[in-house]
Amino acid sequence: MDSAAVSVNGDRLRSRLEALARIGADPRGGVSRFSFTPAHTEAVRLVGGWMREAGLTPTIDGAGNLIGRGVPASSNGAYPAIAAGSHLDSVPMGGMFDGALGVLAAVECAQAMRDAGASWTRPFVSIAFADEEGNQFGVGCLTSRFFVGDLSDEHMKTIKDAEGRALRDRVAAWESVWPREQAPPLAAYFELHVEQGPKLEAEGLDGAVATAIAGMSRATITYRGHANHAGTTPMTLRKDALWGASAFVLAMRRLALYTGGDAVATVGKLDVEPGATNVVPGLARLRIELRSGREELLEQLRGAAEIQARGIGMEYELHVEVSEWTHSPVVPIDVSMQSMALAHAARRGARVVRMPSWAGHDAKIFAPRMPTALLFVPSKGGISHHPHEWTDWKHVTQGAQWLLDMVTALARNLSDG
Amino acid sequence: MDSAAVSVNGDRLRSRLEALARIGADPRGGVSRFSFTPAHTEAVRLVGGWMREAGLTPTIDGAGNLIGRGVPASSNGAYPAIAAGSHLDSVPMGGMFDGALGVLAAVECAQAMRDAGASWTRPFVSIAFADEEGNQFGVGCLTSRFFVGDLSDEHMKTIKDAEGRALRDRVAAWESVWPREQAPPLAAYFELHVEQGPKLEAEGLDGAVATAIAGMSRATITYRGHANHAGTTPMTLRKDALWGASAFVLAMRRLALYTGGDAVATVGKLDVEPGATNVVPGLARLRIELRSGREELLEQLRGAAEIQARGIGMEYELHVEVSEWTHSPVVPIDVSMQSMALAHAARRGARVVRMPSWAGHDAKIFAPRMPTALLFVPSKGGISHHPHEWTDWKHVTQGAQWLLDMVTALARNLSDG
Repeated sequence: MDSAAVSVNGDRLRSRLEALARIGADPRGGVSRFSFTPAHTEAVRLVGGWMREAGLTPTIDGAGNLIGRGVPASSNGAYPAIAAGSHLDSVPMGGMFDGALGVLAAVECAQAMRDAGASWTRPFVSIAFADEEGNQFGVGCLTSRFFVGDLSDEHMKTIKDAEGRALRDRVAAWESVWPREQAPPLAAYFELHVEQGPKLEAEGLDGAVATAIAGMSRATITYRGHANHAGTTPMTLRKDALWGASAFVLAMRRLALYTGGDAVATVGKLDVEPGATNVVPGLARLRIELRSGREELLEQLRGAAEIQARGIGMEYELHVEVSEWTHSPVVPIDVSMQSMALAHAARRGARVVRMPSWAGHDAKIFAPRMPTALLFVPSKGGISHHPHEWTDWKHVTQGAQWLLDMVTALARNLSDG
Repeated sequence: MDSAAVSVNGDRLRSRLEALARIGADPRGGVSRFSFTPAHTEAVRLVGGWMREAGLTPTIDGAGNLIGRGVPASSNGAYPAIAAGSHLDSVPMGGMFDGALGVLAAVECAQAMRDAGASWTRPFVSIAFADEEGNQFGVGCLTSRFFVGDLSDEHMKTIKDAEGRALRDRVAAWESVWPREQAPPLAAYFELHVEQGPKLEAEGLDGAVATAIAGMSRATITYRGHANHAGTTPMTLRKDALWGASAFVLAMRRLALYTGGDAVATVGKLDVEPGATNVVPGLARLRIELRSGREELLEQLRGAAEIQARGIGMEYELHVEVSEWTHSPVVPIDVSMQSMALAHAARRGARVVRMPSWAGHDAKIFAPRMPTALLFVPSKGGISHHPHEWTDWKHVTQGAQWLLDMVTALARNLSDG
């Protein structure tokens, strides 16, 4: 049977997403499922069970990642596997799709293949990473970093949560849930995720394939003027630090708008001192964050932001300090995987585009190491990390089918090659 | 002897200002002399002694104001008195001139008259108000309000400081320092004060006479947008509350600048929520303060500020809330007293101008009730409420002479009339 004809079961995927959302449901709304908490353990048990139903063998790796291993009927079992997945943990009062969609869509791929009696031509594994959000140990994508070998077993032994509990002990507790086994080598990684932004819905699109994980640059800008009496100091003699900060906020908006969607700029923090109604602000300190999927644009924007910061300082006669920039470079994503994703979406009549991923995901860890595809489906109103996070079931099913089509096509290509 | 020929003694005034500054000197710098503290008691004892040297009789009124009473040699002792003074208390780490200058210049007027053998044609009193800054009891100009009868004895009994100590008990403790006596009725009030702003120094002027005590209007402006992911939310779809607040800050600056010095506008407080580097601000709340010496201008500015606030909200697609305005009306100052002040300054060759008082003073309490003059001398760099507060000794002497010239001229005018 041609695996390209295999269809995912949208109803099953929906009922499993709903069942998973009940595990760690927060009485205040949404899902609070933090890594290695009892809710997480319960989720690992439940999802591992579904993996087994789908013909996969659930195992736990050294970082607590749940890995459902499948071995093809053919003799290709020794080949590196094709993987699909995402993470099981959530932010506090998070949504029911962030992470969960990618995990259960990957399980659905295996389940649909099994139901159809189709066989894999390459080993397939579905992965439920233990800790992507970084709530417990303070490191984003912690357990996918371990998966690819970025963090040694030795290093993992030193990792503790805020209450001093070692990650290692938390993982050990799961050996009674599913057997402990080292993760297999991978040939490619696929992740289906909700967009977490409003672009796809606003443009009436069905999905997007990531061209890159956006790079990010951050700096602190401090304007210093003179704190002074808000009555006796004439406007023309003021050195009001907030004037500088305000002009900078608006300048960054214009700068980012002018990139036509290729970059964003955010001032999310702004503090004013002394912060009294009747005192002219003597100091205003803000944090600027720039993101773009294009490294050279990010570099240009850093330069432009710095020129703006200093020029505004001269205009308002303020002293300006620009801190060192912290920088996470753009992570490019394999172009042939992007083309393949576009082609498969087109074959199903889905309207998808290429765009950078503006947020980090486990795929960010895989993209520099192997062919990786990061697929997005629309988020209603762009809302995410919030109880109102929502993706229409039509897009959930469509996204899972897109994932299945790509995974099976790649399995076939690799086997043919 | 013509009292117009009497000269103040600048050296004496300087040495007394320096002696007073040592009482309540703060080890961190400047003067921290709060009402009814031991430092204040010591200051009352010292200044009362100087009053006595100057031929005045020191007394304490029901609010702890130190009043040096003089009775003229002539039969006019029953007439209402001409008063000059200011306050003895300071802000934390305040300057040595704020309040102290007006108190000691008034004492110097009496001392200079006595030294010259000149006699008053009307009763003269010098006043050292106990609490103007409002540090202890939370009310500005508290004891001058009592002086003019705004606060009854009954009301005064209820006034307590932050530690629950009654003002009444504090005042009672001073009966052993100087006799308790009700303040005499006044015909006019004079106050010499440091400008506390940079205008006089910047324009090379020797002084200013207040045309009014500036009125003040305050409101809270709240911009609400949508808190959102700082990566995944495209610039064109953001509802960034800080954009609105920043535009408002700059609009208020332009609005106030455009009055050409007739008004000031300050945003001294600005809070952003949620206030995280990677979240688009969903809320920005700021406090706007407008001041002007012209009531109708203040009203226009309130209207203009509200239009700006709402227009900016529409421009950036934000919800805007403007709170109720709190408003202290402009307190006008007797025009003939202003003219008289200008004439006397001109006679001595001093370069003075008319301008509103941008800060409140004890004179604000007297101006609606009797002929009042509020005279300013320059503040170095406009610095006040700070250890670096400074006024050149030349201007101190010149200011005291200006005060003496006006007080004696008015005494003569009133006696003639």
